[in-house]
Amino acid sequence: MGLIDTNLMRGFSPDKLGKLSVFDTAQMFCDVYCLEPGQSQKPHAHAGATKFYFVIEGEPTLVVGAQQSVLRPGGLAWAAPGEVHGVANHSPARAVLLVAMGPSPNHATSPK
Amino acid sequence: MGLIDTNLMRGFSPDKLGKLSVFDTAQMFCDVYCLEPGQSQKPHAHAGATKFYFVIEGEPTLVVGAQQSVLRPGGLAWAAPGEVHGVANHSPARAVLLVAMGPSPNHATSPK
Repeated sequence: MGLIDTNLMRGFSPDKLGKLSVFDTAQMFCDVYCLEPGQSQKPHAHAGATKFYFVIEGEPTLVVGAQQSVLRPGGLAWAAPGEVHGVANHSPARAVLLVAMGPSPNHATSPK
Repeated sequence: MGLIDTNLMRGFSPDKLGKLSVFDTAQMFCDVYCLEPGQSQKPHAHAGATKFYFVIEGEPTLVVGAQQSVLRPGGLAWAAPGEVHGVANHSPARAVLLVAMGPSPNHATSPK
């Protein structure tokens, strides 16, 4: 458990989008994603897991299934198991998102 | 799946804190909590589920275990299974939080 100021969690890289772990349990992980202009996470899907993106800063483009939209801070995109999702920063400014997925794939004891 | 503007999800009640469902799958639910000054969710725990609160607006007081702190927007509090957590708005302004928990207790098919 913990109390965390995510405003302090920023990690941008010229190579690829930055992912900073807020927490990670068998039931759920939570990350902060940091995207420079032009960076993206390709659309993909997870069997058995639900995931969402919540925009903290910037105007990233979110994809879920056949839907695609530029979201502003407060915008949220979510995908149920098997549903395609992704994010791309086509804007000229940096984008920061809170991302959570449950269950986490990072634990041997994760629920199936 | 969906693309949602959580800025439009506000529901305050004089009686108790408002909870608006953003989505709810077996693996995870996500709500927006709206607290008038003086309102709270009593500290409690969930066996088998991880939960977090992310402050969108206001300066609510978050409790996890023996820790307690006033968080500002961008502040996050999380609790692993069995860990006590709660939120109270001791400030003079409204507070809004994004809340997610996995697995969701609202599905007969929820992972155990």
